[in-house]
Amino acid sequence: MKEFLKKNKDLFEEYLKSKLDNLNCSHEPITTAVKYALDGGKRIRPILCILAAEFMGRKFSDIKDLAVGVECIHNYSLCHDDLPCMDNDDLRHGKPSTHKQFGEGMGVLAGDALLNLAFEFMLEGEHSLDYYKAVSYISKMSGILGMVGGQCIDIASDEFRQKSLQEIVELNMLKTACLFKAALVGSSISLGANIDEIASLELYAEKLGLIFQIVDDILDVTSKAEILGKNINSDLNQNKTTYLSICGMEKAKQDILELEIEAIAAVAKYGDRANNLIKLAKFLTNRSN
Amino acid sequence: MKEFLKKNKDLFEEYLKSKLDNLNCSHEPITTAVKYALDGGKRIRPILCILAAEFMGRKFSDIKDLAVGVECIHNYSLCHDDLPCMDNDDLRHGKPSTHKQFGEGMGVLAGDALLNLAFEFMLEGEHSLDYYKAVSYISKMSGILGMVGGQCIDIASDEFRQKSLQEIVELNMLKTACLFKAALVGSSISLGANIDEIASLELYAEKLGLIFQIVDDILDVTSKAEILGKNINSDLNQNKTTYLSICGMEKAKQDILELEIEAIAAVAKYGDRANNLIKLAKFLTNRSN
Repeated sequence: MKEFLKKNKDLFEEYLKSKLDNLNCSHEPITTAVKYALDGGKRIRPILCILAAEFMGRKFSDIKDLAVGVECIHNYSLCHDDLPCMDNDDLRHGKPSTHKQFGEGMGVLAGDALLNLAFEFMLEGEHSLDYYKAVSYISKMSGILGMVGGQCIDIASDEFRQKSLQEIVELNMLKTACLFKAALVGSSISLGANIDEIASLELYAEKLGLIFQIVDDILDVTSKAEILGKNINSDLNQNKTTYLSICGMEKAKQDILELEIEAIAAVAKYGDRANNLIKLAKFLTNRSN
Repeated sequence: MKEFLKKNKDLFEEYLKSKLDNLNCSHEPITTAVKYALDGGKRIRPILCILAAEFMGRKFSDIKDLAVGVECIHNYSLCHDDLPCMDNDDLRHGKPSTHKQFGEGMGVLAGDALLNLAFEFMLEGEHSLDYYKAVSYISKMSGILGMVGGQCIDIASDEFRQKSLQEIVELNMLKTACLFKAALVGSSISLGANIDEIASLELYAEKLGLIFQIVDDILDVTSKAEILGKNINSDLNQNKTTYLSICGMEKAKQDILELEIEAIAAVAKYGDRANNLIKLAKFLTNRSN
């Protein structure tokens, strides 16, 4: 899996770079800030787009603009999440977060630029109706019924009371799983996936998102900043309730394994088409950064 | 013109309300904050969408989702513009600005939600290829080559040096005229406007945007907060260079009249089709709030 991830990450990086090189925008420092914010990270969401293409018997070039779009959305959310009035994080992708590097106003604007750019990239050129249906789906997953809704639950409730486990699962579902769905399901919709396929991939992406977030909780207390590229103990320092803080380490690890089984079960019936989806679930369950 | 504006504003408000009532999002306070941020204002941009429909021999229902989309984009920009790290304004549409009412984090998120919502609304349902071309055009006008680029010039340069008149014109073009173009030209593209029509409407929208912004500069020093619904003398207090501060009142007023003539000249050849566009240019030249 590691080799597969590396190869496809490189493919994505090359295409992203070509898109950014063609931006043709002379207003500085916004272009620099946008490129800075987009630089780094594991590119899990673009990989999910590529896996959707593979699942549908297609290739990177068929979903490349959706991959760039979803990654722009992901990085805009990090940009704004790191702001002093949100999580106030000064380290991201192993370097100062965007607002630390360019100032707070530019941190807001770079995020705005990235969210807008996501739709600019996705809507460039002429496409099939399935493709536009996919962009519409992605917009729903990243909005107030999806990722932004999760961000809102996150910052609105912390100060006043501890969240319940059910609320945490909903939060993880919205904040993390929805963008996984945007990438995986959105890409498959653009390639004409049927209702059954969409339902299976949705279930898989939801389980994968929950796995990803609980592993994040665990790494936040067990790893090092140099390995993660972001500050550790940030949940604790912000007095945030997480899946881990409610369930404890043992149950959290158990639940991850259960979610892994459920993720795999969601797509196992597709045989070879789902091979790499299954491998990714195993890989993310055991990731160390 | 006043009656025309009132009638079409009401039409828009009713449709916007129906869209917001159907949001079905239970995560509070984000839904309330989004509705709060969208409440108020002159609705010039939706009016421009309606005028584009009229120009093309069509009606409100043909461009209604673009009108809602562009107004969401406009209000997200106000939401973020008012943040403490940007213009730090506490009064907007005659009430506390969104971050004042809901806190800074929610001010960021409400803006994010609105920008995202713009694309959700515009991309819902199935449309013609011309329509999607229009949404793509709107996304360009609101991004770093358009409105966000203008915001960036605005906050990036103020502290260090005074801007030149040429830079101010570019700033006004990006920050204000680009969203006027998104509304007017975007809507006309969605209805199949030809190259000539697009070029004429672009020119008209650019002149109208410049008029609008210089009148704004003037009202900022001559009007009252109760009439404008936002703080006065804000440019002066922020030590902002404006068209007015460079040219002085007499030349600014002269230039507005010249721009009005140019705006009208851009569309005069279309006769009756452009009647209300011409009336709007006259109306905005003489507006008092």
